[in-house]
Amino acid sequence: MITRADCEHRDTEDPLAHARARFRVPESVIYLDGNSLGALPAATPARLADVTEKEWGADLIRSWNAHDWIGLPARIGARIAPLIGAECGEVIAADSTSVNLFKLAAAGLRLNAPRRVILSERGNFPTDLYVLQGLVGMLGGAAELRLVAREDIPSAFDESLALLVLTHIHYKTGALHDMNALTQAAHAAGALVLWDLSHSAGAVELFLDRDRADFAIGCGYKYLNGGPGAPAFLFVAEHLQKQLRQPLSGWMGHAAPFEFGDEYRPAEGIARTLCGTPAVLAMAALAEGVATFDGIAMRDVRNKSKALGDLFLALALSRCAGAGFEIACPRDADQRGSQVALRHAEGYAIIQALIEQGVIGDFRAPDILRFGFAPLYTRYADIWDAVDRLAAITTGARWREERFQIRAAVT
Amino acid sequence: MITRADCEHRDTEDPLAHARARFRVPESVIYLDGNSLGALPAATPARLADVTEKEWGADLIRSWNAHDWIGLPARIGARIAPLIGAECGEVIAADSTSVNLFKLAAAGLRLNAPRRVILSERGNFPTDLYVLQGLVGMLGGAAELRLVAREDIPSAFDESLALLVLTHIHYKTGALHDMNALTQAAHAAGALVLWDLSHSAGAVELFLDRDRADFAIGCGYKYLNGGPGAPAFLFVAEHLQKQLRQPLSGWMGHAAPFEFGDEYRPAEGIARTLCGTPAVLAMAALAEGVATFDGIAMRDVRNKSKALGDLFLALALSRCAGAGFEIACPRDADQRGSQVALRHAEGYAIIQALIEQGVIGDFRAPDILRFGFAPLYTRYADIWDAVDRLAAITTGARWREERFQIRAAVT
Repeated sequence: MITRADCEHRDTEDPLAHARARFRVPESVIYLDGNSLGALPAATPARLADVTEKEWGADLIRSWNAHDWIGLPARIGARIAPLIGAECGEVIAADSTSVNLFKLAAAGLRLNAPRRVILSERGNFPTDLYVLQGLVGMLGGAAELRLVAREDIPSAFDESLALLVLTHIHYKTGALHDMNALTQAAHAAGALVLWDLSHSAGAVELFLDRDRADFAIGCGYKYLNGGPGAPAFLFVAEHLQKQLRQPLSGWMGHAAPFEFGDEYRPAEGIARTLCGTPAVLAMAALAEGVATFDGIAMRDVRNKSKALGDLFLALALSRCAGAGFEIACPRDADQRGSQVALRHAEGYAIIQALIEQGVIGDFRAPDILRFGFAPLYTRYADIWDAVDRLAAITTGARWREERFQIRAAVT
Repeated sequence: MITRADCEHRDTEDPLAHARARFRVPESVIYLDGNSLGALPAATPARLADVTEKEWGADLIRSWNAHDWIGLPARIGARIAPLIGAECGEVIAADSTSVNLFKLAAAGLRLNAPRRVILSERGNFPTDLYVLQGLVGMLGGAAELRLVAREDIPSAFDESLALLVLTHIHYKTGALHDMNALTQAAHAAGALVLWDLSHSAGAVELFLDRDRADFAIGCGYKYLNGGPGAPAFLFVAEHLQKQLRQPLSGWMGHAAPFEFGDEYRPAEGIARTLCGTPAVLAMAALAEGVATFDGIAMRDVRNKSKALGDLFLALALSRCAGAGFEIACPRDADQRGSQVALRHAEGYAIIQALIEQGVIGDFRAPDILRFGFAPLYTRYADIWDAVDRLAAITTGARWREERFQIRAAVT
């Protein structure tokens, strides 16, 4: 039987324990939703005040050069690169994940013409599917989107396949694709591969270059702690950059944006994926978010992430036995991202009751309770407390009485 | 002869004089570049601190509902709408100007198929041309971009024309297109019209609905004071919204984004133009920027804008006579946006010398000096002081001596 004291002891031994001080996590909550919105880094408010009051307010237009606003996308990209196993010239911060997917999926199709099929997974994160539908709809007969069940992906590779688009860690179940194996198999079939790292970057070890990924996109506001709706990032393998043409060819991706010429000429390297003017305030917050990983080994992050997930599942299995839960994520930590998922018919009501008691997870219809672990600030003792409250809510006489009230309240 | 006292007097009579207190403009500079980056609103730092520390830091993920983060794009759009002569359901804040142009140009082409020509102006703001080139390049033979000189626009309308894309006020010369006349002429030729309002919104009176504009895009960081790289906005006339399909169909434009279904179904109304997650911090700053127009009539803004421009030109003509300037903007204020442009062979050096003396305008290659007037915070006395320094730099013995040093320094 695991006790709270055991968990407290693990916190004292945790090599990442010091990183929690890099955040302002309210003491009144147990925050298990950093996979949806990362916590506020302690340094961000002062940085935002500085960029707003000094750089914008006092230095005004001069800050594009004086404070290198213009270089923010590349500088932040260079800081994200080592977190995902890429070189600094392969990553840049820009736009949203959805917009970046459009750019790179269009570019990938073009690179691999006349192949015309994009393959993705049924039940992939919706915006990925919607953006691919928009892209294919725009191209008419020149492209086709094929969706298959997760287990059918490898057998769907054929000579029509231009581009495989997969989310590395499933947003709902936390199940993790084998990036290396799928990338090699797709390459063997002549396809390019685009990975959505939204639930991966900052949570698990990634080796984009080692695994020979062609393209990737990812989110700035989850484990990278960049703030709500933070700019996203994108990756293009160095050897593909020279041929890359993406359709959102705004001035920031031009070889010489301040020449103000009429003809688009793509910038050298990854900068050709930029479109409009960078969102400076949002970029400043993202920079602080990424900086919470300074000096931290992603190996340590991953090890703690697996341990937190294993602890949650072990405690839930013992403390909530008979409460009607099913485990909806991989039990093997190597197959799982930094989150767990439980299935329960009363899932929505249970999440609401947990939130009322200060434990913040989230609910994904129809019946999934999702708990995410941000190893930089989630403690082992937090997991114990969260499951303790989950058990109190869902077991015993009190729950049997209350669940009908909860059910009545939500229906 | 106009004196500084005359200008000070005009400031005391200015119905917009009170609005300057809504900004923090450094006393050490005369800021005539609000057409490139609007000044910092006084309310923005506190608002950003609040959204960062309280909404994000303390309330975390709950703020999507509790503080209506999810509603920011529509709420800000509704505040921009009256500034541009539109209804609130026709405008929404999102992404960058460049990204929004791609969305609406693609949607316009699709609405007007099988017509396939997009017409625009040679020398239009570069990102507009680059984005249209990217769009047309992606569509292959299904679209064509035709660029003509400004004076040839009306005669270029023919039955192949799907979409006319024009910037309402020219970024360099400040010359203003007749929105009403060009829109009606394009409609008569069966074309749709998309207006780029980047240098217009917040600077001149606009009547998008009266003028029957179909689409518009605009910038949040110029006269709307939303901060560097602020989210942009877009407009779609109400009667076109139901048929509108835009290719950047991310989850925020879905009819029910949190159903997490596999099939894209566009939201009702203007929300179908959204793509990814809104940039909350940047949106909060944009909201404060737009709020600097609270209770202000755009008629008053326009009147002051014209007066400031006329004053600048009159002073420059008298005080800088013989210094080698040519006027490169319309002299008639009705034909001009809220900026003036002068041409001078030493333009770059002169702008640098002005900036050293605290007068911030900007330079556009090869020889244009550009001065913008933000009627909410630019004073008549600022214009006098700016031209006074311009005259001191460019006339008299001192300039003849110094210009060679300046030239030597920049070449």
